Amino acid sequence: MSHPHPELSDPPVVPKGGLRIVALGGLGEIGRNMTVFEYGKRLLVVDCGVLFPETEQPGVDLILPDFEYIRERLDDIEAVILTHGHEDHIGAVPYLLRERRDIPLVGSRLTLALLEAKLAEHRIKPVTNVVAEGERCVLGPFDCEFLAVNHSIPDALAVAIRTPAGLVLHTGDFKMDQLPLDGRLTDLPGFARLGGEGIDLLMSDSTNAEVPGFVTSERNIGPVVDEVFRTAEERLIVACFASHIHRVQQVLDAAVANGRKVCFVGRSMVRNMGVARELGYLNVPDDIMVEQKELDDIPGDRLVLVCTGSQGEPMSALSRMANRDHSIRITDRDTVMLASSLIPGNENAVNRVINGLTRWGARVVHKGNALVHVSGHASAGELLYVLNVTKPGNFMPIHGEWRHLRAHAKLAALTGVPEDGVVIAEDGVVVDLVDGRAAIVGAVPAGYVYVDGLSVGEVTETSLKDRRILGEEGFVSIVVGIDSTSGKVVAGPEVHARGAGITNEDFDDVIARIEGVLRDAAGDGVNDLHQLSQLIRRTVGKWVSDNYRRRPMIVPVVVEV
Amino acid sequence: MSHPHPELSDPPVVPKGGLRIVALGGLGEIGRNMTVFEYGKRLLVVDCGVLFPETEQPGVDLILPDFEYIRERLDDIEAVILTHGHEDHIGAVPYLLRERRDIPLVGSRLTLALLEAKLAEHRIKPVTNVVAEGERCVLGPFDCEFLAVNHSIPDALAVAIRTPAGLVLHTGDFKMDQLPLDGRLTDLPGFARLGGEGIDLLMSDSTNAEVPGFVTSERNIGPVVDEVFRTAEERLIVACFASHIHRVQQVLDAAVANGRKVCFVGRSMVRNMGVARELGYLNVPDDIMVEQKELDDIPGDRLVLVCTGSQGEPMSALSRMANRDHSIRITDRDTVMLASSLIPGNENAVNRVINGLTRWGARVVHKGNALVHVSGHASAGELLYVLNVTKPGNFMPIHGEWRHLRAHAKLAALTGVPEDGVVIAEDGVVVDLVDGRAAIVGAVPAGYVYVDGLSVGEVTETSLKDRRILGEEGFVSIVVGIDSTSGKVVAGPEVHARGAGITNEDFDDVIARIEGVLRDAAGDGVNDLHQLSQLIRRTVGKWVSDNYRRRPMIVPVVVEV
Repeated sequence: MSHPHPELSDPPVVPKGGLRIVALGGLGEIGRNMTVFEYGKRLLVVDCGVLFPETEQPGVDLILPDFEYIRERLDDIEAVILTHGHEDHIGAVPYLLRERRDIPLVGSRLTLALLEAKLAEHRIKPVTNVVAEGERCVLGPFDCEFLAVNHSIPDALAVAIRTPAGLVLHTGDFKMDQLPLDGRLTDLPGFARLGGEGIDLLMSDSTNAEVPGFVTSERNIGPVVDEVFRTAEERLIVACFASHIHRVQQVLDAAVANGRKVCFVGRSMVRNMGVARELGYLNVPDDIMVEQKELDDIPGDRLVLVCTGSQGEPMSALSRMANRDHSIRITDRDTVMLASSLIPGNENAVNRVINGLTRWGARVVHKGNALVHVSGHASAGELLYVLNVTKPGNFMPIHGEWRHLRAHAKLAALTGVPEDGVVIAEDGVVVDLVDGRAAIVGAVPAGYVYVDGLSVGEVTETSLKDRRILGEEGFVSIVVGIDSTSGKVVAGPEVHARGAGITNEDFDDVIARIEGVLRDAAGDGVNDLHQLSQLIRRTVGKWVSDNYRRRPMIVPVVVEV
Repeated sequence: MSHPHPELSDPPVVPKGGLRIVALGGLGEIGRNMTVFEYGKRLLVVDCGVLFPETEQPGVDLILPDFEYIRERLDDIEAVILTHGHEDHIGAVPYLLRERRDIPLVGSRLTLALLEAKLAEHRIKPVTNVVAEGERCVLGPFDCEFLAVNHSIPDALAVAIRTPAGLVLHTGDFKMDQLPLDGRLTDLPGFARLGGEGIDLLMSDSTNAEVPGFVTSERNIGPVVDEVFRTAEERLIVACFASHIHRVQQVLDAAVANGRKVCFVGRSMVRNMGVARELGYLNVPDDIMVEQKELDDIPGDRLVLVCTGSQGEPMSALSRMANRDHSIRITDRDTVMLASSLIPGNENAVNRVINGLTRWGARVVHKGNALVHVSGHASAGELLYVLNVTKPGNFMPIHGEWRHLRAHAKLAALTGVPEDGVVIAEDGVVVDLVDGRAAIVGAVPAGYVYVDGLSVGEVTETSLKDRRILGEEGFVSIVVGIDSTSGKVVAGPEVHARGAGITNEDFDDVIARIEGVLRDAAGDGVNDLHQLSQLIRRTVGKWVSDNYRRRPMIVPVVVEV
């Protein structure tokens, strides 16, 4: 089994007849899934998603894969295959298309419809190619076959990629609900057929590889949702992901059964459900929908609101309701259902929302106290089925942090994948499939690219390091004006501090010290602005450290007059 | 049942014969537990703990209760009772004693020993009064009886407080392990006896009120720990809380059984286990301990390291091992056991540690994949036992966020506590117990007091708001020197940005704009420094917003020369 290689070098050229695989995201992290396949100098990309920032990336809106590896070769890209419509698989497409508009996008009907609605907001009209399970599609040297998989969004696909180098099966995200609401099962017979043909490399979703057993069927949520509807005293507010069409369908069905009208709240919820309804993925009964402006005319016990905000997003309607900062004022007769997962990293935010709602007396139903959510990703039990029917020659766990990748690798070894055929790669690690053997041969850059406001890539690791220091400690800035000929101080020192927890009155002491240091410097003939800045920085840094035991950013500004 | 009262006013004077109860911490939050009881103008404090900061309190070291409510009445304090030795119950004592050194501290032998070791680091020698379960102790008008409770630290106590206003039972933190390792059970018969006497107010630990059922016995961890010892290929590293003496005892026992030597790593672990061993709470077999400097001489498979860092604290030995930033280099033959809870808020940090260790190939055992931790707090099933045997006239859930307080209140109602006798209070809410009835009568300040470096209370909400802005967006500072007589610009504008994701080359455009604005201002005869600063702030703010869609802190500095 492969181990981390922190010092991998540039990869060699692709061997003749070999297939190269490079994940630019999704390995060692959950998010920004993107894999580049290369055969005969042509490229095929599977997925192009975003990663959502955590506290270590303060102020960042989104994190993209680094396109540097393919930037000079955009014209070699045959297509981008999108396995399904979640943000961590399609969210970076607008940014890739900024670099080459006409890259063909290949995916299922719903996936492409959701992506096109998103691209329209970026004013991009893409080149698309709708495919369905059972279909094959030749993209340059890549002969692709699509297979149905069940996931927490309809119309998800796995893709089998055939090249002369061999057969690769990429599962995308999937689970194996055996009684799915839409009857569309993960195509285990198809996986088995490919296994019979001989899969040279299996790339399979690792998100839940650490979780033993099997995921409960989505349909088991139905009775719980119904029970919440029946026992909700007045208003019912359901928060879930704007892409979870089956979950919303269950809410609509319960609303019909319990005589409640439904109102979608929030831009992404309204947009996605519009797309899903239009394409027939969401069945909306007649006369059940109401607009937000009609809400005042409907008694609370005849109403259910469906909104986003289940991850505690601070600007979401739900967070604002929890803070009494929304026109919908929560009372002790309201019921709120968080019908969603709790994505790691969002625990605090979700806890704040639950506490806020509870404080006003609302009853809050969530996955911690009721079966109102099941995962979209196969657990270990299901992953074993896939490994056993596909019998791959080589295996690469994908979509997961290190703990998930290693757990999945262990499952593969247990099912008999040869130990040296299990390849654990990180983002940017280059894997070549040659003569039926997959091996790590080098690495390429695959760092984080930050989207912040309008800019892409302008906020760097240095900016984030500055933000982390500023955010923990604040800053102290010292402005001094120096006469350009005499070198004498003619203005300041003026000291400003923000976030440092030091008040203006405290500065008299340090101003005197700075003046002393500058006098000494003038006496020694030091008049280089940079040197003077350094003297001030050291003086103030030491003063703060001695007196406060803190380390704010020190920003000296010496201007010549 | 009481609801939140955001607009409570100052409380009236305490009615004659009434008992006043004010929590300065621990209600609406988990941490900084501190309750002030007042009878006949005398005060009794139960617990005085700290709260650990979350991401909303960047850079803060600790959060204390606000002592303002008692600051003018320090001489009225009869004593501070410490129910047990956890930081969230004793951590703020050094700060309270800074205000009055000789406040008597009352607690069990271990609790006071741990507190004294802590106070010694603050160079404080306290006045102490050791008590034990079964003892009574008259503190002014407060006749206190102590009862044994079982918790995740030995020697924890509940306290029954008798005054002419009635009998209050304060449980402290507790659970009801029926087969505790030290044989010291929570004194349910004592609770029942008090119930028979008539408890006017029960104040009981709500931390796990949402969790159904019962906490597994601590002793059930033993076989799992033993199994980990037996299957650990080479080195075994166990991380747990430095106060969890019973957990460490189980590790020591397993080390003896499996022929491994033990090394304590980290200051707080060494200090606390020294205290526990000296007082006989930790049984350390002969010749089992080794020093850190001897580690190189002992084969990995004969060794277990016991350290802190189970919450992913970035500077802990464990985090540094995960980052390969420690002399102990993790390999794929190491086993790491996190034998501790995962405190809400620490999920990301712990996940990072698990991923880091896993990346190097270590096997990581944690509460997510093995029974290596049980909670220290009673679940709903146990709380019902306490409510049923104490049959309180009034009930106040304590130690919990809103979700926990409400869940506990619901349990109380189910056991028959009269609805108007259930009082849900937040920090600072004033509750009077008069004629056997508890009621909310007002509120006093009970905000967060921040410890940051050497200062207490100097870092304010304003500093934290500044830090949050700086941490998300960085800052842009603009320095301009103005001739004090002519009002002309004689230096700058000089622009500096940090953390804003704006590079110096981008500033030419905005410098020209500032110059234009200042020219216009001079033309209009504007020379007020504050007005000029505001003009610059608006100009730069608009420029950043238009060009980058971001909102860094804008810091204009106009100096007169």
